[in-house]
Amino acid sequence: MSFNLYKPFFLCASEKYEDSLIVLAGIPMDFTVSFKPGSRFAPAKIREVSIELEEYSIYQDKSLYDKTFCDMGDLELPFGNIERSIETIYQFACKLFEDKKVPIFLGGEHLISFPLIKAAANSNDGEFYVLHFDAHADMREEYLGEKFSHATVMRRVGEVIGFKSIYHFGIRSGSKEEIEFAKKNSNLYFVNKWGKIDDVIKNLKSKKVYLSIDIDVFDPAFAPGTGTPEPGGILSSDFFDILLKLKDLDIIGADIVEVAPYYDISDRTALLAAKIVRELILMMK
Amino acid sequence: MSFNLYKPFFLCASEKYEDSLIVLAGIPMDFTVSFKPGSRFAPAKIREVSIELEEYSIYQDKSLYDKTFCDMGDLELPFGNIERSIETIYQFACKLFEDKKVPIFLGGEHLISFPLIKAAANSNDGEFYVLHFDAHADMREEYLGEKFSHATVMRRVGEVIGFKSIYHFGIRSGSKEEIEFAKKNSNLYFVNKWGKIDDVIKNLKSKKVYLSIDIDVFDPAFAPGTGTPEPGGILSSDFFDILLKLKDLDIIGADIVEVAPYYDISDRTALLAAKIVRELILMMK
Amino acid sequence: MSFNLYKPFFLCASEKYEDSLIVLAGIPMDFTVSFKPGSRFAPAKIREVSIELEEYSIYQDKSLYDKTFCDMGDLELPFGNIERSIETIYQFACKLFEDKKVPIFLGGEHLISFPLIKAAANSNDGEFYVLHFDAHADMREEYLGEKFSHATVMRRVGEVIGFKSIYHFGIRSGSKEEIEFAKKNSNLYFVNKWGKIDDVIKNLKSKKVYLSIDIDVFDPAFAPGTGTPEPGGILSSDFFDILLKLKDLDIIGADIVEVAPYYDISDRTALLAAKIVRELILMMK
Amino acid sequence: MSFNLYKPFFLCASEKYEDSLIVLAGIPMDFTVSFKPGSRFAPAKIREVSIELEEYSIYQDKSLYDKTFCDMGDLELPFGNIERSIETIYQFACKLFEDKKVPIFLGGEHLISFPLIKAAANSNDGEFYVLHFDAHADMREEYLGEKFSHATVMRRVGEVIGFKSIYHFGIRSGSKEEIEFAKKNSNLYFVNKWGKIDDVIKNLKSKKVYLSIDIDVFDPAFAPGTGTPEPGGILSSDFFDILLKLKDLDIIGADIVEVAPYYDISDRTALLAAKIVRELILMMK
Amino acid sequence: MSFNLYKPFFLCASEKYEDSLIVLAGIPMDFTVSFKPGSRFAPAKIREVSIELEEYSIYQDKSLYDKTFCDMGDLELPFGNIERSIETIYQFACKLFEDKKVPIFLGGEHLISFPLIKAAANSNDGEFYVLHFDAHADMREEYLGEKFSHATVMRRVGEVIGFKSIYHFGIRSGSKEEIEFAKKNSNLYFVNKWGKIDDVIKNLKSKKVYLSIDIDVFDPAFAPGTGTPEPGGILSSDFFDILLKLKDLDIIGADIVEVAPYYDISDRTALLAAKIVRELILMMK
Amino acid sequence: MSFNLYKPFFLCASEKYEDSLIVLAGIPMDFTVSFKPGSRFAPAKIREVSIELEEYSIYQDKSLYDKTFCDMGDLELPFGNIERSIETIYQFACKLFEDKKVPIFLGGEHLISFPLIKAAANSNDGEFYVLHFDAHADMREEYLGEKFSHATVMRRVGEVIGFKSIYHFGIRSGSKEEIEFAKKNSNLYFVNKWGKIDDVIKNLKSKKVYLSIDIDVFDPAFAPGTGTPEPGGILSSDFFDILLKLKDLDIIGADIVEVAPYYDISDRTALLAAKIVRELILMMK
Repeated sequence: MSFNLYKPFFLCASEKYEDSLIVLAGIPMDFTVSFKPGSRFAPAKIREVSIELEEYSIYQDKSLYDKTFCDMGDLELPFGNIERSIETIYQFACKLFEDKKVPIFLGGEHLISFPLIKAAANSNDGEFYVLHFDAHADMREEYLGEKFSHATVMRRVGEVIGFKSIYHFGIRSGSKEEIEFAKKNSNLYFVNKWGKIDDVIKNLKSKKVYLSIDIDVFDPAFAPGTGTPEPGGILSSDFFDILLKLKDLDIIGADIVEVAPYYDISDRTALLAAKIVRELILMMK
Repeated sequence: MSFNLYKPFFLCASEKYEDSLIVLAGIPMDFTVSFKPGSRFAPAKIREVSIELEEYSIYQDKSLYDKTFCDMGDLELPFGNIERSIETIYQFACKLFEDKKVPIFLGGEHLISFPLIKAAANSNDGEFYVLHFDAHADMREEYLGEKFSHATVMRRVGEVIGFKSIYHFGIRSGSKEEIEFAKKNSNLYFVNKWGKIDDVIKNLKSKKVYLSIDIDVFDPAFAPGTGTPEPGGILSSDFFDILLKLKDLDIIGADIVEVAPYYDISDRTALLAAKIVRELILMMK
Repeated sequence: MSFNLYKPFFLCASEKYEDSLIVLAGIPMDFTVSFKPGSRFAPAKIREVSIELEEYSIYQDKSLYDKTFCDMGDLELPFGNIERSIETIYQFACKLFEDKKVPIFLGGEHLISFPLIKAAANSNDGEFYVLHFDAHADMREEYLGEKFSHATVMRRVGEVIGFKSIYHFGIRSGSKEEIEFAKKNSNLYFVNKWGKIDDVIKNLKSKKVYLSIDIDVFDPAFAPGTGTPEPGGILSSDFFDILLKLKDLDIIGADIVEVAPYYDISDRTALLAAKIVRELILMMK
Repeated sequence: MSFNLYKPFFLCASEKYEDSLIVLAGIPMDFTVSFKPGSRFAPAKIREVSIELEEYSIYQDKSLYDKTFCDMGDLELPFGNIERSIETIYQFACKLFEDKKVPIFLGGEHLISFPLIKAAANSNDGEFYVLHFDAHADMREEYLGEKFSHATVMRRVGEVIGFKSIYHFGIRSGSKEEIEFAKKNSNLYFVNKWGKIDDVIKNLKSKKVYLSIDIDVFDPAFAPGTGTPEPGGILSSDFFDILLKLKDLDIIGADIVEVAPYYDISDRTALLAAKIVRELILMMK
Repeated sequence: MSFNLYKPFFLCASEKYEDSLIVLAGIPMDFTVSFKPGSRFAPAKIREVSIELEEYSIYQDKSLYDKTFCDMGDLELPFGNIERSIETIYQFACKLFEDKKVPIFLGGEHLISFPLIKAAANSNDGEFYVLHFDAHADMREEYLGEKFSHATVMRRVGEVIGFKSIYHFGIRSGSKEEIEFAKKNSNLYFVNKWGKIDDVIKNLKSKKVYLSIDIDVFDPAFAPGTGTPEPGGILSSDFFDILLKLKDLDIIGADIVEVAPYYDISDRTALLAAKIVRELILMMK
Repeated sequence: MSFNLYKPFFLCASEKYEDSLIVLAGIPMDFTVSFKPGSRFAPAKIREVSIELEEYSIYQDKSLYDKTFCDMGDLELPFGNIERSIETIYQFACKLFEDKKVPIFLGGEHLISFPLIKAAANSNDGEFYVLHFDAHADMREEYLGEKFSHATVMRRVGEVIGFKSIYHFGIRSGSKEEIEFAKKNSNLYFVNKWGKIDDVIKNLKSKKVYLSIDIDVFDPAFAPGTGTPEPGGILSSDFFDILLKLKDLDIIGADIVEVAPYYDISDRTALLAAKIVRELILMMK
């Protein structure tokens, strides 16, 4: 037919995987309830509100029209089965990295970062770092008896890539044990140490970095739509200042997780996530 | 790639237009604001919540799995240009009828019914009727100086297909002039005359009927998410009783309009629309 | 100046007191908090949403344009002082009745009905009745130590006009004592006895009646915006059927109370109240 | 100390287990998210809003003051472990039945009914029935690969007590398979068959019955705060009419499940549940 | 009558136009939907919440009681007709400037600033500047085919008063073209350049300035109730610091636009606007 | 019974008054409406959301597990009787201080601070100070004719303990008279003078201080759930920086007041209060 039918993809995204260097994909894992779970509908909501944004960023003086990137939709997962889901996500991410893509994943819960980063590590030889923005360290050995949980994800990541390769920023909540573990083994910056990011960026300049952003790194005033809001977080204007500095890194992939549309009455949490995604796309090679 | 990527279409819908008798299409016309307008996001929201429903209807003892129907996405329209939009919708609908499809359109505002019904009329020779469920008669000659408006749509429809072919049910609001016009020229049933629908169905049995459902036919308790709620409407359980009786008609097309997700905090208006769509699909030939 | 400046009065209301038989006035009494109290903002909200309604009622085939009625705004009260407020409301209402007006008062809390009805009784010789639609009997001797309270208002009214002159409909909540008192002394109809209203109307035909409508007579599904919602109430469509029957009475005044805009996210409670006001105006002489 | 400190228990409840025939207990099972899950906070919310109700029921002319019943608080469960949780609930319920209590359980998700009813069956020799009010049949063999789920609970119950002993009312959603199974094996009444309850009550008169109420049996207009709302449900006033008829049964226990406070902005779903609990207490021996 | 009837005007405002130097007027233009549009109800809401504020400002040690200002209500406009509305607003504003008033206009959408500023320019000989606080440059040549739109307003203004006379602050969104145009022709300060306002104020000291404030200059955390929120905006405390510095200018008029009450559940956006209005009144001569 | 039944107390709190140095108690005074008042349900909500927090504070490297503190529930008050309530609160607080407890009180409205601080003053000989964090000075001589009001509380406190002993921070609203009074008699710091707190803390080092925190000291973006929000307040991250400095003081008691759950849709105001309470407990001796 000759009529154009709108497809609910991210602002300016094409559907052509082969032609795209940067690819977006939703990972709607959230095995909690069969409906109204939390972050399961986040990729759809982030796409929906993305159309409110301009395709041009005054921050970077760049336009999405100058990028070829695609939006793949949401990965289908074996609902309720954590192990097989992690494996599916892992295989999916491996394929993307194999195809030399630079992926941006839209969660879903934070646990998805484990298979994603594992795939990134497997596909990238040599030095490899993770920059982790979050209110919570997510470094527990286990949580409520589970080894694989949103609260343990960075512990599992560290076991794969080495804890020294992880830099946590924005942390303001955790158990005594995990905070002590992180202080000793990885690089944990307490929420009032954002100033240290300049040093970290300097050290990681041009190095391969995977970026994992839990939306609860923001104060609940800016991101009320998330499962475990934690007062005392970063302001959105300060965050964009920091985000733009990351252009000196070689970002090989990123995820943005834990947006929960059902608690986000004004949609501003999803809009914030969408704007971060736009800036990430524009700063990627 | 071998991974399945979820596409945000209506529950159980395929994407294969050619193989489908019944087709869904969103008509997100709502030329009011460039963001957060009202009914523009309704098709997306109706699809989103449709997955909460079962594919099987206990009301009809039928399953969506036994139907081949497709969801075409949303028609792209020349935003802000009413005339060209009406023309585009008209041409689009003509194509569907030409291809012998039975379409269900998701609005959007009620004005879309004018080009849709005009196309239906053009594509169907002989007798043709419109069954109109609404709180408002929508029979004004003009509204705020405009001939084409959500408040004039049925007047325009009548000018094309003849007023005697329109049956309005659920009406409980209007201007004095339009109500008098409707009483005289078309078939208007006041909100407490739902009992008359049995006679109408009997008369229209096996005849070609286009069904236009404005969600504000329901009481605001059942459908708070709409632009002009009107207290005193039908209950949802009563509506499903009536809806099922329509299976005796030869429904050649339908639309469901004026769902406004931004005023629908619990999503129950969209869910109600989605359930109506499921029942319509199942009762179509 | 020659420009028209919109005044936020009720749909179609004039400001000309002298020329009007029917007068609207807000009584924003609600001495509970100095901001965000509950029903204090109800008159303003009811006026605001009234413009969504048509000036014409299909229910009665009458138009507000054919009525001369005015909206006087909200009565200023000595905030926080219950006794002086009751006195002010009483004097205000006496003046209206003296001037031979038929007033419709917009609450505010239900306590305002006491001075209003007392004024109505004083200004009307001979037989005089109160028709009271509410979830609660409001017939307590005292409430939390207070004699003048929203929960005691009909007890106080009965002491002035005689309990036998009060008819309560929709009642589904109360203390044991007040219900027993009401059953014995006034005319209490339990919520499932709406059918009895035909008899009452027949008995009161052409007699002077003051109508007091607490919005919580409706089920919370229809009127969520109220301070003490009580499940199991009347449906809005059933209520309009009953309301229209009241045209056989000689309604000398009415109030509609306990709308609380801050709990009414969809504004449908205020809209319901506004529609009731329109119908009342249209049925008044 | 001599000061009274308020304890957040259900309206008029004592804390004295030994002296009470009727006992309330919350079963906050909801193993979905570690925060903001859905029905986990329902018992707390139902208690909170219960204080808005009167202790006296005009429906039954009885007062909670005349009953000795206690509120035990919420049962602690091994979070995230379904099997051990079911076992804990089962043992807890067995103890209550052993102590000759008549329990009312506040869910939590519907799965809790399985161990509760199993305990009831074990503790009661002879004939024993389950009256199940729900939008969904909950009769699946398994759901998303799980045998124990809110969607399979009545299948599991039937395996223990026999399917013929289950009566389902209000059903308007299900898979083809489970509906066929239920039609064949248990007693399923479609949502428009509420009239049949008189026969059922007559048949079960004075027999031991366990009552399981899923709040989504109500239309979403009346109970928006639930995880899987289904349009077309019962009205609250009709439900109270039915509920009162159950006094002819020998109710040995009851649960009310799937209230989800986070989707219940007006709190009216919790308030509806609280009123049902009050009426249940008053009709129990 | 001797009773005081509350008029819903801005805190402490009189109705006496003649005696007032400063005048408030609502310009509820928002030609998008006939109900629930967005900013159409903003003037009414800003007035409503203004009563929560003190009449005294600790920021300026001044009181509204020491000012004679009036609130004229909302200008009536030919709904839906953009051209005639712009003309009406223009004529209205000309009259105010002719009468030597200092007006503060409450929007409505940002397009109203075009006729308002044009009138200010016409009525004021010699140098004249516009200070524009906004997230968006609003400097497009046209938007969706329209020359007159909220997204083109400052382009139209510049054509009338000269682009060099416009200073934009807070800008963080725009199309590539308009941003380049603004950088070249007017004075555009990116959102992180608030520090430059001291220089601008110094340069404009005692000069005639019209102030146009789009509420979306604030971060959505502070002003969620607006049509096109844009993350990364100014904090409210920082804004008040800046606002107070403007007392060195000769402010001849101001508008505050794009407050959208329907997306402002806590009313805090309207309250923020009301507080800005109070400070503006107090700093005006 | 051997089952654990969850008690809805603050995170990690015991019920053992005798063994606890620090005690929490709710003071749900809010004599405004009999339901949905405002701050009456705040203690319950703060407890409820406290379980989302970790028991460990990364800010102080301390854990609630290392503290013995109890949660006493809510004090029962003679509803509606201000004088007797103030007396009851006073006697209750005296008892706690007599027992050498360090209490943290959860309001309720700000008026509760008067009897609480009076009790603190009576029980502590020698120097004694009040640190008051608030948007409003609360220093009126009377408010709406009442001497005892949330708007007069610090005036009453000053009359008891001497005005020079009160330090107000965050103030940005008041009447001219009270601000002048406060400037002259007590120590008032305007909202942009937070920097002065270092001096104050230095001066009060190791001295006995009672801390009274009105949640509206925060900007409405961070604490929308309060009765009289005032734009321009402190950010949550800045507040935690300040709060931690208070550990140099000898805090003998504290209250946190004016959280209003019904206006706090995301619960983030209550969560913020809960986090402040956790930090206070951890910094107390």
